[in-house]
Amino acid sequence: MKVLVTGFGPYRDVDRNPSGLVAEQLNGSVIDGYEVLGAVLPVSFRRALELVPMLLLEHRPAVALHLGLSLGAAELRVERVAINLMDSEKGDVDGYRPRDQPIVPGGPAAYFATIPTRRVVEELRGMGIPARLSYSAGTFLCNCVMYISLHTIAANGLNALSGFIHVPCTPELAVKKGSPSMCLHLIKEAVVAAIRVSLRSRNSARVTA
Amino acid sequence: MKVLVTGFGPYRDVDRNPSGLVAEQLNGSVIDGYEVLGAVLPVSFRRALELVPMLLLEHRPAVALHLGLSLGAAELRVERVAINLMDSEKGDVDGYRPRDQPIVPGGPAAYFATIPTRRVVEELRGMGIPARLSYSAGTFLCNCVMYISLHTIAANGLNALSGFIHVPCTPELAVKKGSPSMCLHLIKEAVVAAIRVSLRSRNSARVTA
Amino acid sequence: MKVLVTGFGPYRDVDRNPSGLVAEQLNGSVIDGYEVLGAVLPVSFRRALELVPMLLLEHRPAVALHLGLSLGAAELRVERVAINLMDSEKGDVDGYRPRDQPIVPGGPAAYFATIPTRRVVEELRGMGIPARLSYSAGTFLCNCVMYISLHTIAANGLNALSGFIHVPCTPELAVKKGSPSMCLHLIKEAVVAAIRVSLRSRNSARVTA
Amino acid sequence: MKVLVTGFGPYRDVDRNPSGLVAEQLNGSVIDGYEVLGAVLPVSFRRALELVPMLLLEHRPAVALHLGLSLGAAELRVERVAINLMDSEKGDVDGYRPRDQPIVPGGPAAYFATIPTRRVVEELRGMGIPARLSYSAGTFLCNCVMYISLHTIAANGLNALSGFIHVPCTPELAVKKGSPSMCLHLIKEAVVAAIRVSLRSRNSARVTA
Repeated sequence: MKVLVTGFGPYRDVDRNPSGLVAEQLNGSVIDGYEVLGAVLPVSFRRALELVPMLLLEHRPAVALHLGLSLGAAELRVERVAINLMDSEKGDVDGYRPRDQPIVPGGPAAYFATIPTRRVVEELRGMGIPARLSYSAGTFLCNCVMYISLHTIAANGLNALSGFIHVPCTPELAVKKGSPSMCLHLIKEAVVAAIRVSLRSRNSARVTA
Repeated sequence: MKVLVTGFGPYRDVDRNPSGLVAEQLNGSVIDGYEVLGAVLPVSFRRALELVPMLLLEHRPAVALHLGLSLGAAELRVERVAINLMDSEKGDVDGYRPRDQPIVPGGPAAYFATIPTRRVVEELRGMGIPARLSYSAGTFLCNCVMYISLHTIAANGLNALSGFIHVPCTPELAVKKGSPSMCLHLIKEAVVAAIRVSLRSRNSARVTA
Repeated sequence: MKVLVTGFGPYRDVDRNPSGLVAEQLNGSVIDGYEVLGAVLPVSFRRALELVPMLLLEHRPAVALHLGLSLGAAELRVERVAINLMDSEKGDVDGYRPRDQPIVPGGPAAYFATIPTRRVVEELRGMGIPARLSYSAGTFLCNCVMYISLHTIAANGLNALSGFIHVPCTPELAVKKGSPSMCLHLIKEAVVAAIRVSLRSRNSARVTA
Repeated sequence: MKVLVTGFGPYRDVDRNPSGLVAEQLNGSVIDGYEVLGAVLPVSFRRALELVPMLLLEHRPAVALHLGLSLGAAELRVERVAINLMDSEKGDVDGYRPRDQPIVPGGPAAYFATIPTRRVVEELRGMGIPARLSYSAGTFLCNCVMYISLHTIAANGLNALSGFIHVPCTPELAVKKGSPSMCLHLIKEAVVAAIRVSLRSRNSARVTA
C-alpha cells in the first residue's frame, strides 16, 4: 500500500518551497512498509483541485499527508480543520483571485482532519521538534488542498486518513523573507514521524473495529 | 594566538543553554590557526564581572566573541552596542536583582562592538543563515558581559576585537519555551564564520596600519 | 424588533472584560429602530450553551452579535467560521476542561457567520477603526458561543443573522496583560457600526427576496 | 519657563504623524506653569541636527521631550539610551541614506535619557496607559534627535532634562499600516503626564541640591 505526501512548487519569490522539497525527497522511500508517493502540486487552485482527487482515486493511499509553507510559522502547524472557502488577493500562479468562493459548491462548511492531529503534535514535541495544533489553514491553496482531499475521501468512501501540516521556512528562505525557520532535515524527520503515527492510528483502528 | 568564545550555563528552566553548548563544543578547536578557548559563564553578574576580565587579561585573545540566548529570537542577532546598565526583575542565579545599576560606576554610557558586525551579518546571510544587526543586548547578563569585555579591552589597551551574538533557542528548547528556534549545528557554523570574519578584519587592519 | 449583543463576564485576572462592558453599555439603546438586548455571559461552557439558545428563542432578534476578548489582538477580528470543537487546558470558570469535545454531538463540523463579515470589516476600516477578517475563533468560549448561536438559528429556522467579533484589550487591561489595546469608546463605536451593516444587509436581502 | 515638545512631520505614506500632531496640539498650552513650545521636525537628518540645538539654545527649556512614531509599537516606549549612529536604508525625506555614520563625530557612544524614565513609565501605567521602558530608539531620526538633544545639553551645560518617547500609530494610521494603535487623546494625555513627572523630578532635584 501507499502513502501520499504532497507539497507545493514555486510561488512568487519562493523558488524552493520546503513543502515541495520534502515531498520530492520522500518520493519512493518506504515508511513502515508503505511506499511513499511524493507529489509536488502547482500553486494553482484549478490544477490542485484536479490533481488531488486524481491522486487519491488512482493510488488509494492509506494516509494522505499534505504539506504547505507557512511564512510566519516558527513551528510545524498540524491543521485540524479545512473550510469550504477560497479567497486570495494576490492570486495563484494562474492569476486566479477568488473572492469568498466555495471550493465545492454545496459542500459542507468544513472537514476536520482525520489523521490523529493531537498525537502527531505530541510525538513531534517528544522528539524535540517544535509543533502545535492549528485551527486555520487560511483561505489559499493549503486550505483548498486539505479540504478537497478530505472531501474526496468522504464523498468516495475511501479508506484513507488525511491531514495537512504547515511547515516553516528553511533557513535559506528565511534570510530572504525575514521569517522564523526550521532546518529541512528536521521538517523531513517530522513528516516521516507524522506518517508513522497516522499509519499506527489507522491500523490500530482497523484491528479494534 | 587564541580566540575566546563564551556562552552561558543553566538559568531557571533552561538547563541546556545553546550559547554554552557552542562554547563547550568549540573549546580546543582551531579556527584559521587560532586556538579556541571556550568558556561557559555562570548567569551571575558578580561572577561574570570577575571571569570575563580575568579570561581576557590572562589569554589576550585576538577576538573575544560572547554568546547568549535570546528566547524570542528567530535569527542570530549580532549586537552593536552594550550599555552601562544592569537591570533585572527576575534576578540572576545568585538572586541578585539590580535595579538601574551601572556595570562600571563612572564608565562610559556605552561601547560599540569592535568586531565587524555588519560584515558578520552579511557573511551569515550569504551562507543561508538568518542573522541581523541588533541595537540592544538588553540589561541582563548578555549586555553585562559584552560591556565588561569591551571596557576591559579599552581600559587595558588590549589588542582584541570583541562582540556579542544573541542566538535563538534550539528546537528542543523551543518545544518547552514556545519560541522560534535554530538547529545547534547551524548556530555553531555561524559562530565559526563570525570568528573567521572577525579575524580577517583584525588582521587586514593590522597589515594596513 | 431586537438586536442581541452578548459579551463575557470576568475570567481569571480579567475582571473587566471589554466584551461584557460593551454589551452592558449598549443594553437598552436603540440602533436604527432596533432595541439592543445586551447580555453578559459567564465564561462557562455549560451555562453559555443554555443561555445563548434561550436568548435567541425567547427574543428572536434580527441580528445576534457576539463579542469576546482576544488577548493578543491589536484590531477587531470579525470571525468567519465557528467549529464544532471545545478544547481548553486552563478550563472555564466552572473548572470544566474539555479535550477535543464536540459542542453539538453529531452537529456539522462548522458554520460560517451569516452577518456580512467582509462588509463589516470594510465599514470599520473606512471609519478609521482597525479590523480584519479572521478564520479561527479558537476552541474556547468564543468559538462555542458563535457555534451554538449559528446552530440554534439553523436548527430552529430562525430569521436572524449571527456573527462574532473578537475585541482587543482596553488600555487599562493591556497594562496588566502586556498586549495591544483599543479604547473602549472605539470598540463600542465599531460594534454599533457592525450591527448597522448587518441590519442593512438583512433588510435589503428581505426586500430582494 | 518653557517645555519643549518635538514630533515629526510627514514621512512616506505617513501623512499624519501622531508625534507631530501631539507636538502641534500641545503648542502654546501650559503645563504646571510651564509654557509648551511644540515643534514639528522634518524627517531629515540634516535639518533636525540644526533645528534641535537651535531650539534648545534659544528657548532653554526646563524639559525637552521628543516624540516619534514607532510603527510596530503597541504601547508608549520611553527610551533610555541614544547612540551615536545614523543608519537608514530607506533614507530620510532629503534622500540621505547614512550607513553607520556617527551623529557627532568623536562624540560619546551613547547618552542616557535624563528625564526620569522609570517613573514616567510607572506613572503612565498607573493611569491605565500602556507604556514600557525601551533600550533602543533605532538608528533613524528618532535616535538622532534624542542623541543631539542630550549632546547639546551636555556640551553646553544647559539645565534641561531630555528624553524621547516612541508613540504607536493612531487607529486611522493603523488601518493603513497593519500595526497596533493607540488613540491620539491617550497619547496626548500620556505626553502631558510625562512632562509633569519630568518637571517634578527636575524641581525636586534642584530643591534637594
